[in-house]
Amino acid sequence: MRLVIGNKNYSSWSMRPWVLLKHFGIPFEEVKLRLDFAPGSDFYRRLAAVTPAGKVPVLLDGDLAVWDTLAITEYVAERFTQHAIWPRDVKARARARSICAEMHSGFTALRGNCGMNIEARLPEVGQRVLAEEGVRRDLDRIVGLWRDALQASGGPFLFGEFSAADAYYAPVVSRLQTYALPVPQDIADYMARVWTAPGVADWVRDALAEQDFLDFEEPYRASRG
Amino acid sequence: MRLVIGNKNYSSWSMRPWVLLKHFGIPFEEVKLRLDFAPGSDFYRRLAAVTPAGKVPVLLDGDLAVWDTLAITEYVAERFTQHAIWPRDVKARARARSICAEMHSGFTALRGNCGMNIEARLPEVGQRVLAEEGVRRDLDRIVGLWRDALQASGGPFLFGEFSAADAYYAPVVSRLQTYALPVPQDIADYMARVWTAPGVADWVRDALAEQDFLDFEEPYRASRG
Ligand SMILES: N[C@@H](CCC(=O)N[C@@H](CS)C(=O)NCC(=O)O)C(=O)O
Ligand SMILES: N[C@@H](CCC(=O)N[C@@H](CS)C(=O)NCC(=O)O)C(=O)O
Repeated sequence: MRLVIGNKNYSSWSMRPWVLLKHFGIPFEEVKLRLDFAPGSDFYRRLAAVTPAGKVPVLLDGDLAVWDTLAITEYVAERFTQHAIWPRDVKARARARSICAEMHSGFTALRGNCGMNIEARLPEVGQRVLAEEGVRRDLDRIVGLWRDALQASGGPFLFGEFSAADAYYAPVVSRLQTYALPVPQDIADYMARVWTAPGVADWVRDALAEQDFLDFEEPYRASRG
Repeated sequence: MRLVIGNKNYSSWSMRPWVLLKHFGIPFEEVKLRLDFAPGSDFYRRLAAVTPAGKVPVLLDGDLAVWDTLAITEYVAERFTQHAIWPRDVKARARARSICAEMHSGFTALRGNCGMNIEARLPEVGQRVLAEEGVRRDLDRIVGLWRDALQASGGPFLFGEFSAADAYYAPVVSRLQTYALPVPQDIADYMARVWTAPGVADWVRDALAEQDFLDFEEPYRASRG
């Protein structure tokens, strides 16, 4: 299998399936395309050769292309049933899918104001965007859904052991850290566990080593310095 | 099982799982909440009693609440394995999930400019919004992905028999009709098959009978007349 991804410092969607595969030790070859959303870019040209949807990530398995993080997650869960990619319990699994799907189409205020930028530390931006009601509402909901899941499962991860749900929220953990958004201690503890989990830690290490500054992904910094 | 939905004329997300359950003859009780996105509304109050995510649709099965259309679809597919909710072939299934997930978080120009409004006929609005590049791009992609699927399967539905993928795109069929967006004949034929499929036809009949005009869902009409 090959996984086509974007820049590790910025591409939150790419992070999810990469982290999931790594965490469970599922072998794959990484194909990294430098993000470039200009029409006709090399990024879009190379992507068009593998997917008609024109976005990363894409999972290639033989002649099959699976695109979009949720479809990739389901494909991997079906193909590697020896791993509890989703929680084994039917109700926990339904709740895990509910919060992943909620993330997939939601939290637009947080996503729009706090783009993933693993290497950056922007607490002053975080202070500023907290003035927006949408950001505060998204943050509240995220804290709430993490807490509900952790309390129901007993932890250490959302549904007990690390699952697709934690991989799905790993880029959110990154955003909350970069922008230093305030969270209660139990949630900070969960975030620390995610950050050091195998798979997540591997991605973060690669992202920090990447050193590929992209202007259009940097509304808040003029340079890396 | 109970399915909590919004107005049938307008709630495109509610339409998807309702149509799916009806199509496969899976019994459920419908709980309809009148859409009202004002803070503290009756809609939000009643919704809060069943889901922390604050959106319709929600599927209730005993003490379990499953929210978000994609999570509901997966839950139903797991619970009623006698029905081919997803295509039985592993590759077709992966492609079906890819295009559903693509819909779930995409096509924002089409969704923003052409809200679902089953009873309305707004071809002049369609003409106008086609001036926007995003709308044209969304339309092109939808025609392309329908055609790819129909050609690979041979039809009559996207993956052969009617599946979750057709239910997922049924509200898109409605939008293309309401705004009279131009499509090639083979695609118009597919749309006609979706429109008259059991489940879809039931929803449309109910939507037309509903007669509940909501101002905030009507950017283009001042009245029903
Ligand atoms: N819903 C998609 C979102 C993927 C996505 O938006 N990827 C971005 C990079 S992080 C992209 O490729 N954007 C290109 C574009 O939108 O043109 C998924 O879950 O995979
Ligand atoms: N991603 C959700 C979207 C659901 C959704 O946006 N539902 C609308 C009605 S069609 C809603 O309840 N909106 C209330 C709100 O956004 O506050 C799904 O697939 O179920």
